[in-house]
Amino acid sequence: MQGLMMDYPLTLQHAYNRAVRIFPRKEIVTRTEDGIHRYTYREWGKRTAQLAHALHNAGFQEGDRIATFGWNTYRHLELYFAVPCLGAVLHTLNIRLFAEQLVYIINNAEDKIIFVDGDLVPLLESIAGELKTVKQYVIMGEAPQSSGKLHPSVDYESFIANQPETYDWPQLDENTAAAMCYTSGTTGNPKGVVYSHRSVFLHSMGVGLADGAALSERDTVLPVVPMFHANAWGFPHAGIMMGSKFVLPGRFLDPLKIAQLMAEEHVTVACGVPTIWIGMLQMLEREQLDLSSLRAIYCGGSAVPRSLIEGLNHKNLNIVHAWGMTETSPLASLCKLRSYQLDLPLEEVFRIKAKQGTVLPCVDFRVVDMETGQEVPWDNKSYGELQVRGPWIARAYFADTESAAKFAEGWLRTGDVAVVDEDGMLQLVDRTKDLVKSGGEWISSVELEGLIMGYHKVLEAAVIGIPDQKWSERPLACVVPKPDYVGQITKEEIIEYLTPHVAKWWLPEDVAFVEAIPKTSVGKFDKKVLRARFEA
Amino acid sequence: MQGLMMDYPLTLQHAYNRAVRIFPRKEIVTRTEDGIHRYTYREWGKRTAQLAHALHNAGFQEGDRIATFGWNTYRHLELYFAVPCLGAVLHTLNIRLFAEQLVYIINNAEDKIIFVDGDLVPLLESIAGELKTVKQYVIMGEAPQSSGKLHPSVDYESFIANQPETYDWPQLDENTAAAMCYTSGTTGNPKGVVYSHRSVFLHSMGVGLADGAALSERDTVLPVVPMFHANAWGFPHAGIMMGSKFVLPGRFLDPLKIAQLMAEEHVTVACGVPTIWIGMLQMLEREQLDLSSLRAIYCGGSAVPRSLIEGLNHKNLNIVHAWGMTETSPLASLCKLRSYQLDLPLEEVFRIKAKQGTVLPCVDFRVVDMETGQEVPWDNKSYGELQVRGPWIARAYFADTESAAKFAEGWLRTGDVAVVDEDGMLQLVDRTKDLVKSGGEWISSVELEGLIMGYHKVLEAAVIGIPDQKWSERPLACVVPKPDYVGQITKEEIIEYLTPHVAKWWLPEDVAFVEAIPKTSVGKFDKKVLRARFEA
Repeated sequence: MQGLMMDYPLTLQHAYNRAVRIFPRKEIVTRTEDGIHRYTYREWGKRTAQLAHALHNAGFQEGDRIATFGWNTYRHLELYFAVPCLGAVLHTLNIRLFAEQLVYIINNAEDKIIFVDGDLVPLLESIAGELKTVKQYVIMGEAPQSSGKLHPSVDYESFIANQPETYDWPQLDENTAAAMCYTSGTTGNPKGVVYSHRSVFLHSMGVGLADGAALSERDTVLPVVPMFHANAWGFPHAGIMMGSKFVLPGRFLDPLKIAQLMAEEHVTVACGVPTIWIGMLQMLEREQLDLSSLRAIYCGGSAVPRSLIEGLNHKNLNIVHAWGMTETSPLASLCKLRSYQLDLPLEEVFRIKAKQGTVLPCVDFRVVDMETGQEVPWDNKSYGELQVRGPWIARAYFADTESAAKFAEGWLRTGDVAVVDEDGMLQLVDRTKDLVKSGGEWISSVELEGLIMGYHKVLEAAVIGIPDQKWSERPLACVVPKPDYVGQITKEEIIEYLTPHVAKWWLPEDVAFVEAIPKTSVGKFDKKVLRARFEA
Repeated sequence: MQGLMMDYPLTLQHAYNRAVRIFPRKEIVTRTEDGIHRYTYREWGKRTAQLAHALHNAGFQEGDRIATFGWNTYRHLELYFAVPCLGAVLHTLNIRLFAEQLVYIINNAEDKIIFVDGDLVPLLESIAGELKTVKQYVIMGEAPQSSGKLHPSVDYESFIANQPETYDWPQLDENTAAAMCYTSGTTGNPKGVVYSHRSVFLHSMGVGLADGAALSERDTVLPVVPMFHANAWGFPHAGIMMGSKFVLPGRFLDPLKIAQLMAEEHVTVACGVPTIWIGMLQMLEREQLDLSSLRAIYCGGSAVPRSLIEGLNHKNLNIVHAWGMTETSPLASLCKLRSYQLDLPLEEVFRIKAKQGTVLPCVDFRVVDMETGQEVPWDNKSYGELQVRGPWIARAYFADTESAAKFAEGWLRTGDVAVVDEDGMLQLVDRTKDLVKSGGEWISSVELEGLIMGYHKVLEAAVIGIPDQKWSERPLACVVPKPDYVGQITKEEIIEYLTPHVAKWWLPEDVAFVEAIPKTSVGKFDKKVLRARFEA
């Protein structure tokens, strides 16, 4: 028997219409070259409709991929809604990718048009000759260093000028593609994740949950995370749906500039990767700024170090550890203390806040033994691969034939290794491919690295497994000393430093002192290169 | 182009699995004859699975309507999930309906089995002979006054005993019916609203939004609203999904008993109709109770009087005005002050809190002129019928051929008359059929009644339109004096009292003093009866 409820599709058109009608006076603030650009949802709504008309009149259609190459600005927020509400697909390009990856991505997605911020024009010009499907460039703002290689191109303001200020959106099925974003793996080509209206809508509801990021009309939201990273973690869509005030930093990502913007605009919620907040914490040691309006910093992308959680706590700032991937829209879990954890000693609270926490409603998970394929016990110590499923989790990549194994039995295999406590709180311990297996037991390279980097003479450390006849694998620590300690640090003192903190068999078999840890295009340790170097 | 996200259905099975796995230690507390019954989600989950097995083994199948006739208890909460997770349909019967309506509803729904609380057995026995489809009764708890007319019957605990404690739920489409509830209109037969898994799931997310009821794991929820009224406003489903602690009052609805339970269990959120809170406010004038844990009282079902909002505010209690109908799952709007209203003077705050407020995400609305069918301007004064649509709004009634006009052009016609301010905040002024049309202008009977009932000599007042040759209709006030003032109150003093508060043409044409206002089965003024009496 079927229910008798309306067959009303979950689309971004609903969010757009709601925002424009119900929150017309709410503000969207952007830092620009000239200072502050400020307008209301009412104006944003009109310009978004104008943009939709301009795209439609220029011949772009439902299903077309429309790319952006830009910072977090009001124009980007117009594109975030105009494109999917038209039925087209917003493809946000990561401005930090290597040129060859960008070329691959744009050609793989078959982007028809690229909207590019003026200051990024030279970057795009360097690859324009290799783009096979792009028919039009739209330049947002001044492009002082343009050499004119983007052709044909038009200025954004001219493009949308004189268009009608409302749009009668087409009827869309909720499974229509809304946006796409490529992941940059360490192996193979980048993979395109294609979000649907339904997935973005549900994810926005998730971000708005009291036990999600609790985004509300009363919030002022500053996404530091780029709008080209997994929809800026869904905060733009959710914030527009809830009627939040937005503060967008443009290309001004210096910690002091961001903190000043937070103070001036009374930001209540921010989100970004740990690097940003590590920089801000250092800056706050020197500068006096009133950030008392900030109720939460949502932080993910890589594990949040406990030292950062404690440091921000000392400044009365609340950082919330979140976890997700491009394939998970991305918010899949976040660490909010449970009701029965609120009165724990501070030491215990920090330990819990360093976990990736509780999955959101709509996210189902299991943690599977990497050899037997069986679910591991929830004992907070058994290792297994984290696998997730749900309505905002990817089921496949775009135009890809290599990755079927990533989506096994209806689950996304995250490649992350987790332990789970008896209440289902998750903690990630490593990537599956980076775990070291010694004598049949797992050693977390991430945990060892974190410990070694806590030693005062160490700048960076990466741990890899090296083949061992007796134990099958043993950990090797690759260590970069701080400049003052080059040649002044020994294997023995590192082992001695580690000894009280880990089981004896976790202690690295050897320590190699290196000049630098090789990195991938997105700044993560490239252990593939290290393994190749040390295999013998 | 379609998105590439998982086709994962939104079902209550997800909420059940989540709750049992992630929140095993959270409590469900019920007041019973014997004091307090207390168990954890872990035990609730086991018993819910046992109940599902018992139903399955007794031959009940997907699509079967399984009815409940009971109070808010842990057993009712087991039924709330066991039945829909099986693919069957939970039909909650209103224990306060007239016998003939109950008979109609049970036969119309074709209920196969009824779960009945022990103390309610005599009520059900009185109609058992007329029930055509019921094959089984299950009695929950002791039934001291049973005469044995419910046949065959079994005790709930015996029914579920010795069944396995987990259930491998069947795969369900998200549009599968999950629950049904009949509305009791003042005309015609009751109408059955059939909720789907999708609608209940989305509504639960809505209840969990920071700008919804913000239900969270940290909340302790006490639904005073009966579980037979539109799913107790969705709080049981949402609370289970979020991991809230539950406190269920059973049949003990006396304001003092409820307040004591709130104080003892540190309840943070309660919900119920205004009558309950009016009674509690009076009780709090006499009794000292610590209700400081209570962060919000969600109140709807009928308009919340401003005097109640103010009175609770003086006790440091925050009442939130919500609006919905059985057909809207029911939460459609609630009144949370906007960011730019927080610093208004208290007088203004109370005026705003008396509105029905802002629709939730997923709820779309329009307010339509009752004669032209055009949308009225959002000027906070133009009257029109409120119409809503969305994924948790009914599109039709069950086995009904009379009500097509209620669902026009994809909208539910609520029968409520609203004004809207420029930011889309709603205020209901009347029911369409109760508005008085005088000289081409509308007069709100509800507003006049509210004013008249503020006069110190008046107990109750109902305003109806009576035919008038010149003005087409004019308002007649039917007034019940307080016992001390019978014969001591005149038409003139009521008119004089009203004069400063309303436009001259709103003043009642006449005042009729009556002994009582006739009421419907659910306690609302029955203006149909009044109109018949005063038409001449």
